Amino acid sequence: MKAVKIVSLDVLDIRYPTVKLGLAGSDPRHLAPNYACAVPVLRTDDGLEGRSLVFTIGDGTQIQKAAIEALRRFVVGRSLEEFIEEPGLFAQALAEHHQLRWLALGTYRMAVGGVVNALWDLWAKREGVPMWRLLTSLSPERIVQCIDFHHLRDVLTEEECLAMLQARLPGRAANVQRIEEQGVRVYSTAGWSGRPLSEVRQICGDLYGQGTRAFKAKVGRGQQYDRQRALDEDRRMLDAIRESTGPDALLLTDANQNLGDWRNAASYMTELAEYRPLFIEEAIAYNDVLGYARLREALAPYGIGVAGGEQAPDAVTFKQLLAGGGLTHCQIDGARVGGVNELLAIVIMAAKFQVPVCPHSGGIGLGQLVGPMAIFDQAWFGSEGRWLEYLEFLQKGVFRSPLVVRDGHYQPLQAPGWGLEMEEEFVAKYRYPDGPETADSEEADRVAAAQPGAPPYARFWA
Amino acid sequence: MKAVKIVSLDVLDIRYPTVKLGLAGSDPRHLAPNYACAVPVLRTDDGLEGRSLVFTIGDGTQIQKAAIEALRRFVVGRSLEEFIEEPGLFAQALAEHHQLRWLALGTYRMAVGGVVNALWDLWAKREGVPMWRLLTSLSPERIVQCIDFHHLRDVLTEEECLAMLQARLPGRAANVQRIEEQGVRVYSTAGWSGRPLSEVRQICGDLYGQGTRAFKAKVGRGQQYDRQRALDEDRRMLDAIRESTGPDALLLTDANQNLGDWRNAASYMTELAEYRPLFIEEAIAYNDVLGYARLREALAPYGIGVAGGEQAPDAVTFKQLLAGGGLTHCQIDGARVGGVNELLAIVIMAAKFQVPVCPHSGGIGLGQLVGPMAIFDQAWFGSEGRWLEYLEFLQKGVFRSPLVVRDGHYQPLQAPGWGLEMEEEFVAKYRYPDGPETADSEEADRVAAAQPGAPPYARFWA
Repeated sequence: MKAVKIVSLDVLDIRYPTVKLGLAGSDPRHLAPNYACAVPVLRTDDGLEGRSLVFTIGDGTQIQKAAIEALRRFVVGRSLEEFIEEPGLFAQALAEHHQLRWLALGTYRMAVGGVVNALWDLWAKREGVPMWRLLTSLSPERIVQCIDFHHLRDVLTEEECLAMLQARLPGRAANVQRIEEQGVRVYSTAGWSGRPLSEVRQICGDLYGQGTRAFKAKVGRGQQYDRQRALDEDRRMLDAIRESTGPDALLLTDANQNLGDWRNAASYMTELAEYRPLFIEEAIAYNDVLGYARLREALAPYGIGVAGGEQAPDAVTFKQLLAGGGLTHCQIDGARVGGVNELLAIVIMAAKFQVPVCPHSGGIGLGQLVGPMAIFDQAWFGSEGRWLEYLEFLQKGVFRSPLVVRDGHYQPLQAPGWGLEMEEEFVAKYRYPDGPETADSEEADRVAAAQPGAPPYARFWA
Repeated sequence: MKAVKIVSLDVLDIRYPTVKLGLAGSDPRHLAPNYACAVPVLRTDDGLEGRSLVFTIGDGTQIQKAAIEALRRFVVGRSLEEFIEEPGLFAQALAEHHQLRWLALGTYRMAVGGVVNALWDLWAKREGVPMWRLLTSLSPERIVQCIDFHHLRDVLTEEECLAMLQARLPGRAANVQRIEEQGVRVYSTAGWSGRPLSEVRQICGDLYGQGTRAFKAKVGRGQQYDRQRALDEDRRMLDAIRESTGPDALLLTDANQNLGDWRNAASYMTELAEYRPLFIEEAIAYNDVLGYARLREALAPYGIGVAGGEQAPDAVTFKQLLAGGGLTHCQIDGARVGGVNELLAIVIMAAKFQVPVCPHSGGIGLGQLVGPMAIFDQAWFGSEGRWLEYLEFLQKGVFRSPLVVRDGHYQPLQAPGWGLEMEEEFVAKYRYPDGPETADSEEADRVAAAQPGAPPYARFWA
């Protein structure tokens, strides 16, 4: 094959006004999000286009765009082969750039993830395969080569990683075949804070009828200001889900870090123990690894698990959440850490501690991004205890390859790469700042400040 | 007093080519930094100018600038009184903005810190006092009002914080008086990776002669690729410092996260135990709170302490480093977390665990920013075990109120606010991108890639 040269990196800023969709996507901390993304687009001299997506929730996407653009000088002019030959070193060159790394996690690491994932997209498209196929065909040696072990060796060494994978290799093909036939089990996040209960009932009832068997509700909005009001709101939501589904439906809960410290979180969740939620997700700060461990212990007698990770910014945080015993369910996100390379490390560490990976997919394009990683995980380590989050909105009319869920299972996409190509009409309509229907941050501020349980400082937004 | 309205927020991007200063500022991870900063400048309708500074190391300052500009809509048009009345709520409105908080720590939190600190600057200037004076005059109740306790209560509650401060209040005035007379003890960071040893000897000798009694050396550059070469390099540096100072000079070490995981860090540092360093700073990832605790235990028998915090992005991380027993020295930075408000929480948590605060000041303007917080800490909790970092370069010709060190002690600045006003000539020369002598990131990449111990992925930079 002839060398393929990367000739450009452009970044789209897309903002959809989810605030107008009955507050779809809203939660106790993100009271009025507008699902948005910064989309890095790489082009090569032979006409390939590689893209990925960094999920944001409206305002701030311009910062994310600036961060991705800062990486342009490292990719434009390089050949795709340089990445494919040394994907681990290339990802480290970005994440550990001697000046840019000062900006650390959050925006900068997400920018690295965006660019690295766009390179993986080019790789998969060059092979002409969907991302899950590329990921599940990597050899153990290749996977080890992708990972930066520098800060991880107290928990996972190269040798241990290789041995784990080699031991599992004989079972991989059968797992992949099963996933191709059945797909990956999903749960639905339908219980958004402030979403009208009539809508929640309708959506959950429909999804239950179509085979989905687990449903997530946001809980704890404004609990720090009026606990009783918050608990009443949560119970109404959980009742609505329970009543509109069936006795075999599992309930999941998610507080988006709004339950304060582990003690308060434990006491709040015991009030909701009667609903027997499979887990409480992001009860406390996403990087409070000591708090996570205490919370898991405190909730174990109630049968409530502890999930987290969607905002955990790097493998070092996951290492501690996993090794420290803080998680019963490990929630990776496709656009938060440094891309596929860092996710490989996280998924393998989760397997080591036997914590099932249940990827975060509550956002635009996240199902496309984490689905392949869920398939990678289940191909190597089986499906037991795994659930993939699924949103029923922002697919058709948005992506040329919308997600398909059949009988409660996510189906592997057939499009090459991530399948993140967007419909032109959607981009034209919602591109910031010039799309005629792009989201309005100031309007969202007013909506957020008017929500029940909004914090006292919300008055400084509007 | 009549209400003062904030009418503008501008942001400067300043990049000084420290690469050309004999690699001043370089370390094992940041091989060729150009000391830089994004400077938020607030102006009021009565002619006050409030500013602060977010320290960066060259490339990426444009991202930091974009992040600060995203906060413009929350401050322009507000009155300064709204901030002064509710500094805690106002800081939370920024740090926890319902959309922007998705960008999390790193760049976004630093932007919040920059704007919050610029508001504090306006407050101090309105009172006509230096920042250390404003900070040391806050009542216990006012301090509690500044802090967001939401994620901290398992370690520090409002009640406990108030009680701690009330108990110390009677001793505060005498402490402040002592600091005004003597200043705050400093250590010098002179042993930068790659700085010519002749220069290190000269600078350390001079500073020792002027009263400084502690000196820090960077260690561990490239240890993961060639341990013996790295140890030899470190020993030459430590010998140079020891030989150019006196027998009563303390040695400090700093690896800027380059020693991998805690086991490798412990084994590396035992090789340098003969130098009896007071501490090893940032041995491992700055957010590896479990690793910090193990490292502290492992190095205790050798009498080597464990310092960290300059990149710890929030109070939640410090809470765990402190409560988890990971630190012997707590290194706050003035421009990494969400500004004064978050720093107050960190300093008080450090006091609770009796860990001395030794602020990070290795960067442009950081002495101006952390000096007042060091004075706050020592006014309330005494000076025992405390050292403030001090750099001998980038003061005169840069700031209108350069730092003064006398007999090894930092002297409280008399300028109102932070004293961060810059010389116009300096700004004109080094402003990015149009200043004629502004730093060149691509040149720095080439310098970094050529350093001994540079990582194999450095070839993707140049």
